[in-house]
Amino acid sequence: MINIGIIGATAYTSLELIKILLRHPEVKITYLGVRRTDRPKISDIFPSLKSMLDLPCETVEQKEVPDTLDLAFITLPPTISMQYVPLFTKQGIKVIDLSADYRFRDKSLYEKWYKAQHTDDKGIETAVYGLPELFRNEIKKTNLVGNPGCYTTSTILALAPLLAKGLICSDDIIVDAKSGVSGRGREPREDTHYCECNENIEAYSIGGHRHSPEIEHILSLKTGQKISIQFVPHLIPMNRGILCTIYAKPKHKLRETTIILSDEEVRNLYKEFYSNEPFIRLKEGSEIPKTKDVIYTNFCDIATKVTDNRIIILSAIDNLIKGASGQAVQNMNIMCGFDEKTGLL
Amino acid sequence: MINIGIIGATAYTSLELIKILLRHPEVKITYLGVRRTDRPKISDIFPSLKSMLDLPCETVEQKEVPDTLDLAFITLPPTISMQYVPLFTKQGIKVIDLSADYRFRDKSLYEKWYKAQHTDDKGIETAVYGLPELFRNEIKKTNLVGNPGCYTTSTILALAPLLAKGLICSDDIIVDAKSGVSGRGREPREDTHYCECNENIEAYSIGGHRHSPEIEHILSLKTGQKISIQFVPHLIPMNRGILCTIYAKPKHKLRETTIILSDEEVRNLYKEFYSNEPFIRLKEGSEIPKTKDVIYTNFCDIATKVTDNRIIILSAIDNLIKGASGQAVQNMNIMCGFDEKTGLL
Amino acid sequence: MINIGIIGATAYTSLELIKILLRHPEVKITYLGVRRTDRPKISDIFPSLKSMLDLPCETVEQKEVPDTLDLAFITLPPTISMQYVPLFTKQGIKVIDLSADYRFRDKSLYEKWYKAQHTDDKGIETAVYGLPELFRNEIKKTNLVGNPGCYTTSTILALAPLLAKGLICSDDIIVDAKSGVSGRGREPREDTHYCECNENIEAYSIGGHRHSPEIEHILSLKTGQKISIQFVPHLIPMNRGILCTIYAKPKHKLRETTIILSDEEVRNLYKEFYSNEPFIRLKEGSEIPKTKDVIYTNFCDIATKVTDNRIIILSAIDNLIKGASGQAVQNMNIMCGFDEKTGLL
Amino acid sequence: MINIGIIGATAYTSLELIKILLRHPEVKITYLGVRRTDRPKISDIFPSLKSMLDLPCETVEQKEVPDTLDLAFITLPPTISMQYVPLFTKQGIKVIDLSADYRFRDKSLYEKWYKAQHTDDKGIETAVYGLPELFRNEIKKTNLVGNPGCYTTSTILALAPLLAKGLICSDDIIVDAKSGVSGRGREPREDTHYCECNENIEAYSIGGHRHSPEIEHILSLKTGQKISIQFVPHLIPMNRGILCTIYAKPKHKLRETTIILSDEEVRNLYKEFYSNEPFIRLKEGSEIPKTKDVIYTNFCDIATKVTDNRIIILSAIDNLIKGASGQAVQNMNIMCGFDEKTGLL
Repeated sequence: MINIGIIGATAYTSLELIKILLRHPEVKITYLGVRRTDRPKISDIFPSLKSMLDLPCETVEQKEVPDTLDLAFITLPPTISMQYVPLFTKQGIKVIDLSADYRFRDKSLYEKWYKAQHTDDKGIETAVYGLPELFRNEIKKTNLVGNPGCYTTSTILALAPLLAKGLICSDDIIVDAKSGVSGRGREPREDTHYCECNENIEAYSIGGHRHSPEIEHILSLKTGQKISIQFVPHLIPMNRGILCTIYAKPKHKLRETTIILSDEEVRNLYKEFYSNEPFIRLKEGSEIPKTKDVIYTNFCDIATKVTDNRIIILSAIDNLIKGASGQAVQNMNIMCGFDEKTGLL
Repeated sequence: MINIGIIGATAYTSLELIKILLRHPEVKITYLGVRRTDRPKISDIFPSLKSMLDLPCETVEQKEVPDTLDLAFITLPPTISMQYVPLFTKQGIKVIDLSADYRFRDKSLYEKWYKAQHTDDKGIETAVYGLPELFRNEIKKTNLVGNPGCYTTSTILALAPLLAKGLICSDDIIVDAKSGVSGRGREPREDTHYCECNENIEAYSIGGHRHSPEIEHILSLKTGQKISIQFVPHLIPMNRGILCTIYAKPKHKLRETTIILSDEEVRNLYKEFYSNEPFIRLKEGSEIPKTKDVIYTNFCDIATKVTDNRIIILSAIDNLIKGASGQAVQNMNIMCGFDEKTGLL
Repeated sequence: MINIGIIGATAYTSLELIKILLRHPEVKITYLGVRRTDRPKISDIFPSLKSMLDLPCETVEQKEVPDTLDLAFITLPPTISMQYVPLFTKQGIKVIDLSADYRFRDKSLYEKWYKAQHTDDKGIETAVYGLPELFRNEIKKTNLVGNPGCYTTSTILALAPLLAKGLICSDDIIVDAKSGVSGRGREPREDTHYCECNENIEAYSIGGHRHSPEIEHILSLKTGQKISIQFVPHLIPMNRGILCTIYAKPKHKLRETTIILSDEEVRNLYKEFYSNEPFIRLKEGSEIPKTKDVIYTNFCDIATKVTDNRIIILSAIDNLIKGASGQAVQNMNIMCGFDEKTGLL
Repeated sequence: MINIGIIGATAYTSLELIKILLRHPEVKITYLGVRRTDRPKISDIFPSLKSMLDLPCETVEQKEVPDTLDLAFITLPPTISMQYVPLFTKQGIKVIDLSADYRFRDKSLYEKWYKAQHTDDKGIETAVYGLPELFRNEIKKTNLVGNPGCYTTSTILALAPLLAKGLICSDDIIVDAKSGVSGRGREPREDTHYCECNENIEAYSIGGHRHSPEIEHILSLKTGQKISIQFVPHLIPMNRGILCTIYAKPKHKLRETTIILSDEEVRNLYKEFYSNEPFIRLKEGSEIPKTKDVIYTNFCDIATKVTDNRIIILSAIDNLIKGASGQAVQNMNIMCGFDEKTGLL
């Protein structure tokens, strides 16, 4: 049994994290940290936790952090997170950071998109990108994981098999992404007002969303190609779930050359690539991923479809689970030597 | 053609008001006033108005109000509204106030519930309660209307026929009300966050909602009885619409005394009471009011059902139309001598 | 480890049942029965189960039922269920029936409301009503449980403490109930069409809902009083969750006699009544039950509020969990001697 | 004042048509035809119409159609519609058909996609495609209009300016379309069940949607190029509204040749192309189309954004108004010589 802390306990992702950890037989939540001073019980912030976890939320100070923890999840916002992470790692506490602060290997890229100087050089150098399907071995050995974002997870998992085999053009990828509103966080803003989101769909951050460079960066790192994507996110009137519809261009034009990929060949390629993955489910035949089939789970459902001049890939996840807290627990399981599925099925 | 101003132009009710007035052949919106100083175009606030009304929102000053108006709708919040209304009435401009500031004939009652001193004695004395079905003749003659609230309209219209005939106990009325989220206004707050409202139903202000004394006050004034209601509002995951389910107790216990009201008798009583009302629709047989049948309209749909020991009344309106802006236009039509239905069908 | 069968495997309640049982360490689902003959895999019916349970759905024949089961959940519709239940009980298989067929001790009452002759006399006589909070001891000893309905669970749990103490009038209880759409089942009908339910609220079955006699029957049995309720259900645009708003009349008029119940006294009465209940959560102070806090859980959240002439009780459950499948598993745990909370937290 | 008939009166599109026509000062609905025989009042089918239109729905016979009409809207399903249209045109009655039966100039293309023989040769030859922005002059002179589909309208309006100028590759266009559920019609089916649509997003008909050939056909006809699109529709949990996100490839690679299109140049091109269009609204700067701004209106809101290697076009309409009934009335106005905006603002 290991002791767990959550720093930034009032975020939506923390609520999901707590629910998963409460079902996990190998861990105990012993510390909840927040950047406020009124010490509310977590079950007053999230009444759904009442009688399940009634721990108070402690004010987390930058100077002293609890040293009784084995592992800490940091759910603070980007640029804030890096102020706290080193305090934990210094004490030998394993850290899984859910912000963007430890997702980039290239500091300047981070600084360009998050418009802030990165203050933890050592952290950013040693952190591992917490996508188990691509970086499992590295995660096993690290003490600091930068947990991927939701759009990123969904997109990278969808594209990795084709890019790894070099079958699609790396500079002509269109990602049309659709996300539920919880992806915007818990802060009340005009664009999260019920009446503004309900009965509405809209695109946002066209050509400028922060997840776009993260996707390109990680896929480029992994595949050794320079990847460039067109990423357009949309806001959907539902609480949770992400669906990415991805349009990739085969490197050799299909049906006109000797290289003709069929629906079945593409499907087999994915089956092979993800053959031992407990949380990837590949669709067969005319089956399609639906967000309702993955919400409240750590699964990523993927389907592929070959058309005249594109390979279309659809991938669905729960943005709060496989896109955040479930994946964080998956990473914890790997880092701590637990069965990777513990608490997640 | 008369000139119309709207003071408080960025409220949800103002958007509905503008849409209705743009279809009204007898009026022209010539002034939009707001309590901010950046002079945005109304179509930048509400892009749905683009190419329909691109008027700038002027900063409304307490000292000088536009004197070219024939009628002003005030959609400012309660306690603010009364600071502006007298400036208009003094200049002979007709005023329809959509806040609570002119709904009470009893100043102390207002002050108790709105926790503020009322500063417009003359206004509160002369204002008419803008529910045409009950106060049409008074509305015809007044220059200042206090436009009813949404819960109030729905409840009073449902109860008036039975109370007017003295057929139900005036101190044992239960109003279980359900409202869409737009009733909470446009300001982003935790309780209007999409993820907090969606997939959720909850009661609020149990035993302490401000509409409760308004209902009791107006029904008591109109019927000469002391009316007391149990009012419990609920928040429903939809944009607009109110359904009130009302449980009234027959004065003489049904089926045990000589006074036995049948479903048909109750229905006939309502038909007679609302015989010439253009915006009241009474349900027949097993028909029931649904909010989807009244949203985007000025109708109030009402059904009644007699059970062993209660008369159940159901009434549905659009909280933004018959519960606010549509009714305001109905009042304007009456005050200005237009056909009462103009712009509303 | 015991062997479990689910008969009627394609119902929404079965999906929830399967998800819970898959997390339960003491059971194994070994048989899925349906009344169709094409033998689909359950994960083709419910793709969310893919890679978790890929069992085929067997055609369940009335003549021969699988005899390798230790316990069967029957999720068939009322009047159908009783055709299958005796086949299982006869073989010594424990049965939890989720239809209405075994909820009534009074056969004629069942036959009146379900408009069908009851064909399992022995069953209806020996079955126990599966509400653990009121019938735990009986459930321990029985082999046949009639699992309560969703409205019923929510209402009975809310009223039992006050009725047990004789503090409220047993013939003047108003239950205004609000349910998500999954309560209507999976069959596509006009009234479950997305566009008919979405952005709409409506009442239905006013004065004639089948859950009404069930509530009266069970509460009367339990408290020895003749209970009579006014029950009006409403359909809410959300997938799951029930909120009941209940208006009870104190037996002695509050604040005018020596018997004056305060908010605190009522709350203490509930605390005492439910002192050891793992799935009842009582709200404090101004806290209110919200369906979003109980969905996907087996909790029933309850709040009480004393007003001038009523005690208002609010109770919220997930209609598919505490109102069906979660409660069924709770009953299984009791019948089989497992810890009552197993698989449910 | 002209006499209007609606054949297929119980469709969702007919409800919208009726609401618009009731506000139209130049027309009178005198006939409602249905393919059922029980002669229900339209206000019993759609209670929202009560007291506005209480006309009975007549059984429309193929042999005799009402000859007192000036114009008929046909809202029957594809392949059925063509059985009725000639009966009206033969009598000199103007017809606007909302099915797909008169949208193709190429009979074989229709027959391929709708898997039925087309039985009205003369009709399909003379019909005009009812998209006023592209075919206004032809619509003025015709007696038979094939009214476009919802996806089609949204996509063609978004692409026409760029294709007309030959600025984008005609064979590399990706249309990622998102539609509310009313696009699926009123028939209850598993895929329109509330609980299947709510809190879910999914793609469907990937590579095989019938609107895809319609878009290609019309754009090819209009621009003289062979147009080929990748069209993937998605179902969104909302009642109405369509958003198309379109990824077009500039013919000459931007920023590397002399032909460099800026955001402003593209925007100006659209402004010029749609300079006199009353129902096209072009977004400026960072403004984006939102379906909530166009629902319940006949507007099509369009924005464009130039990125490194694509021109992204976003267009939003109400699928039932500009995508069906509003456009049908716009066509009627043109055919009958009324002001094109009548009844539509």
